[in-house]
Amino acid sequence: MQKVEEIAETEVFDQSLYMPGISVDCVIFGYQERELKILVSKFKNTNLYALPGGFIKKNEDADEAALRVLSERTGLKNIFLNQFYTFGEKSRANPEPMKLVMQANEVLFDDTHWMLQRFISIGYYALINYTRAEPKPDYFSESCSWYELDELPEMMQDHNIIVKKALESLRRNIDRKFIGTNLLQDQFTMGDIQKLHETILGEKLNRTAFHRKMLNSGLLKRVGKKKTGGSHRAPYLYVFHSDDE
Amino acid sequence: MQKVEEIAETEVFDQSLYMPGISVDCVIFGYQERELKILVSKFKNTNLYALPGGFIKKNEDADEAALRVLSERTGLKNIFLNQFYTFGEKSRANPEPMKLVMQANEVLFDDTHWMLQRFISIGYYALINYTRAEPKPDYFSESCSWYELDELPEMMQDHNIIVKKALESLRRNIDRKFIGTNLLQDQFTMGDIQKLHETILGEKLNRTAFHRKMLNSGLLKRVGKKKTGGSHRAPYLYVFHSDDE
Repeated sequence: MQKVEEIAETEVFDQSLYMPGISVDCVIFGYQERELKILVSKFKNTNLYALPGGFIKKNEDADEAALRVLSERTGLKNIFLNQFYTFGEKSRANPEPMKLVMQANEVLFDDTHWMLQRFISIGYYALINYTRAEPKPDYFSESCSWYELDELPEMMQDHNIIVKKALESLRRNIDRKFIGTNLLQDQFTMGDIQKLHETILGEKLNRTAFHRKMLNSGLLKRVGKKKTGGSHRAPYLYVFHSDDE
Repeated sequence: MQKVEEIAETEVFDQSLYMPGISVDCVIFGYQERELKILVSKFKNTNLYALPGGFIKKNEDADEAALRVLSERTGLKNIFLNQFYTFGEKSRANPEPMKLVMQANEVLFDDTHWMLQRFISIGYYALINYTRAEPKPDYFSESCSWYELDELPEMMQDHNIIVKKALESLRRNIDRKFIGTNLLQDQFTMGDIQKLHETILGEKLNRTAFHRKMLNSGLLKRVGKKKTGGSHRAPYLYVFHSDDE
């Protein structure tokens, strides 16, 4: 039962510190070279998987709570974050998975415990280059690892639905600058950005039409040619226009 | 002090019925013929204005709570609703306006009253033809009326920011079918839809480019000519393609 004290020390369980009934869940998209992955935690001593998430401190913005979770799970600061949807269905209120987690980890609780009540959860997605993150499990988790989108485990509650909704939002926003600036190098070729779009959309795009669309979008600025040893076929390099141009 | 009992009857104040710390706020856009308006409530016996809003019952989805508020304020059922952003900043927690409302209406309270705590609010926007609504004030309000976008009163808390963010979301979504289907007649001319877009965007659009874009969008289906008494210049009528076409 030493664990109960340990938790008390981490303040995970002190309800007086947190907003009641509301949580944040983070869909952390990691991209590199045609691979789009998501960070998933596995609870200790159970077979339960979940998105990285947490509660909102009483003196903390919801966005700050999400950034805290992200930074704790990835080791990264200044991550790009987008709030995409709030999950407020009453059907989310199923205390059983959390009871299992508490039981499996020798945490004392009764049925009125605040963490077993109904929660409304604010969904955020983050965009990072997954090679830069160093995933760290939280107190209750034995692992926190990258999963391919089509190989996600079945997660607790509505977490698979949360991922689906995050992906829809990401796809709807695909033409917005923040996606490229967070997932590409500072300078990139048209091929790089096409690969990124194809990976997020999960489909092949016509090269000519895509290039025309991107060039007409006004988002990109040509900055030179990629150094490939002198070939005149070296592709152009681009950056995103900065906001003040 | 009769009011306290009245409120108890309406259950407005029974915290055991509601999710703590979370509310819904509704930006109700009303459109007709180049006019875009928003429904705003004025609290009784004060100079305070607010968006129509409310709390989420423990046995109610967040969406259901928003629909309940909408239906109570407009008299309309089956309103189109879009959740657009959740306002989770700690700086929202300012109990003073609500204290004024309670004082002005002889409601007993002390500083720990749950309605004076920090709230996180889920923002919804609704789209209706404003000539169909019959605005009804809620218990605390003396009026609930339509305001032109550029003549909104200063509202309590961050409600003017909520409107700004709703409008941004509406503008970003302007090419999506649900906006037209909720704000236009079943059949409409290209001029009708251009007027709608211009009003929402707050700018004039080039007629030829707009028509070309709409015709290329695949959203519209031509269904005949408007009966104007036989002129060959009568404009075409359109409907939106149904989802299964």
